[in-house]
Amino acid sequence: MKLASLKSGRDGKLVVVSDDLTRMADASEIAPTLQSALDDWATVSTQLEALQSKLNSGEVAGEAFDQAMCHSPLPRAYHWADGSAYVNHVELVRKARNAEMPDSFWTDPLMYQGGSDTFLAPRAPVVMPQSEGFGIDFEAEIAVITDDVPMGVSPEGALKHIKLVMLVNDVSLRGLIPNELGKGFGFYQSKPSSAFSPVCVTPEQLGDAWQQGKLHLPLVSHLNGGKFGEPNAGVDMTFHFGQLIAHAAKTRPLGAGTIIGSGTVSNKLDGGPGKPVKEGGVGYSCIAEIRMIETIQDGKPTTPFMQFGDSIAIEMLDDKGQSIFGRIEQVVEQQ
Amino acid sequence: MKLASLKSGRDGKLVVVSDDLTRMADASEIAPTLQSALDDWATVSTQLEALQSKLNSGEVAGEAFDQAMCHSPLPRAYHWADGSAYVNHVELVRKARNAEMPDSFWTDPLMYQGGSDTFLAPRAPVVMPQSEGFGIDFEAEIAVITDDVPMGVSPEGALKHIKLVMLVNDVSLRGLIPNELGKGFGFYQSKPSSAFSPVCVTPEQLGDAWQQGKLHLPLVSHLNGGKFGEPNAGVDMTFHFGQLIAHAAKTRPLGAGTIIGSGTVSNKLDGGPGKPVKEGGVGYSCIAEIRMIETIQDGKPTTPFMQFGDSIAIEMLDDKGQSIFGRIEQVVEQQ
Repeated sequence: MKLASLKSGRDGKLVVVSDDLTRMADASEIAPTLQSALDDWATVSTQLEALQSKLNSGEVAGEAFDQAMCHSPLPRAYHWADGSAYVNHVELVRKARNAEMPDSFWTDPLMYQGGSDTFLAPRAPVVMPQSEGFGIDFEAEIAVITDDVPMGVSPEGALKHIKLVMLVNDVSLRGLIPNELGKGFGFYQSKPSSAFSPVCVTPEQLGDAWQQGKLHLPLVSHLNGGKFGEPNAGVDMTFHFGQLIAHAAKTRPLGAGTIIGSGTVSNKLDGGPGKPVKEGGVGYSCIAEIRMIETIQDGKPTTPFMQFGDSIAIEMLDDKGQSIFGRIEQVVEQQ
Repeated sequence: MKLASLKSGRDGKLVVVSDDLTRMADASEIAPTLQSALDDWATVSTQLEALQSKLNSGEVAGEAFDQAMCHSPLPRAYHWADGSAYVNHVELVRKARNAEMPDSFWTDPLMYQGGSDTFLAPRAPVVMPQSEGFGIDFEAEIAVITDDVPMGVSPEGALKHIKLVMLVNDVSLRGLIPNELGKGFGFYQSKPSSAFSPVCVTPEQLGDAWQQGKLHLPLVSHLNGGKFGEPNAGVDMTFHFGQLIAHAAKTRPLGAGTIIGSGTVSNKLDGGPGKPVKEGGVGYSCIAEIRMIETIQDGKPTTPFMQFGDSIAIEMLDDKGQSIFGRIEQVVEQQ
């Protein structure tokens, strides 16, 4: 099943979307918002599945679906926690700021909680008061939405609480990170509002691409129209989503509608860092990584962080080339 | 005006409460939940004020108000960020774990984002899988709820976005903090679900006690029935709530219903750490502080962290001895 939230009020209006993303049907009589559906998922999801099935078959005609009308599937959420499951990315980014990486990072997930009260729409600009010194970066990631998760859930047990999957641009302000992390309380100002893909889908919808809490397909990022990365989200993911959820739920239950992110998707190459797309590699899901590679190769980074007017697009295609979640497309703008 | 959310569904049922906390009137026809009221505060608050005024005067009879029927004013919220405005507390706690405190902490607020999807009711137990090694501690704090706050708001401008004030027990797991902060991403597992006071009130309701974003009254904590602390929340607060909100909104707007906490309330004495209540001091708003004093005095801490069965009560009285926000009363229980 595929779901989206049309822009409407603070929480959007729930629609089911056809598998090919061309049509939609109003689902607001079943549940007015995605959050309300998640609050009662066991009951509501069956009705939503039935409606989407009729939309797919043509029994319900529906209307044309326009991704530009979408807000993020949850325009605001009660919990958004982002892991760093691709430890390769963590290792590179820390090298870039001359920070050591403890060995425990390979066994104990890193996770931070991000702002979830003001998510951006998938086509909304990233508005910032300044670019100079902020180091505006995108991060292309996978995210899942859970139902209610009990405290102390096991990694295996957590897998069945994953109800929906989507993409996310976890905007990061690299210039603010060293000072903020130096204070010891983690990210806050350095992680402004994130944007999610126009459409979220059930794990079942992903077929064989979804296995044991990992999504085995390339995540494609275009920076200013040029392909920047297409690493496979199922490769080099040290912690699967069940492990990330279990980490999040160690000392508290998670409320329905909790969003857990994978961290920046990153693939190694021959045991080392990957190569840029233009050199035949799978590239990167954020600018910080390529800057690290450039520093290793040339002594200094040459790819700048995002400036006003720069654009980022994030998408994932199935094995037939069909967009699964629709496309995040954002331009950086001055406030 | 005083408001509360009776336990009902996931988001509670909004009631207005009489100034003396003895009676309440159903406000759900004006706004079903506190979040819905905050989403449209400019319109809704006037109607709520009118109803509360009639309840106070007796024109509306209302019903008996029972704090035990309350959930936290926002049973779940889209944003809960806790500052550390009483830098004295930060200095002591860091000393206790042999961590240096940079001078910038006196000018640049510390803030972490906490879990807001599963708040505890004010009389709900703090349920934990274990006490041994977790170092279960309470933290008595003041918190404010904002309406929509624009990105880049000034500290002075932020003050007018404070719509409601309440108390919070920011439960902390001291045993998990050093390892978690050592990872560099800040608190997550070490900050389980928080509980808020049964009642939240408008700044206007606080009269002269509310001045320039600070609440000038003692915050009283009882640990296992004995008075543990009564520091004045208006004293030694290095950053007022306008400054904390401006810090939170530097790189993103804040959504209506954002909760910003003060951090553990802590008063100095003659420029140094305060004294325990039993020695004639104003005591402390968390166990970690008294343990630090004990370590300084005796070489080791003697007050244990909370064990299963231990209780904490947090309250604030006005100058007539009347409880303003009702009373947080929690017992630590095993899962």
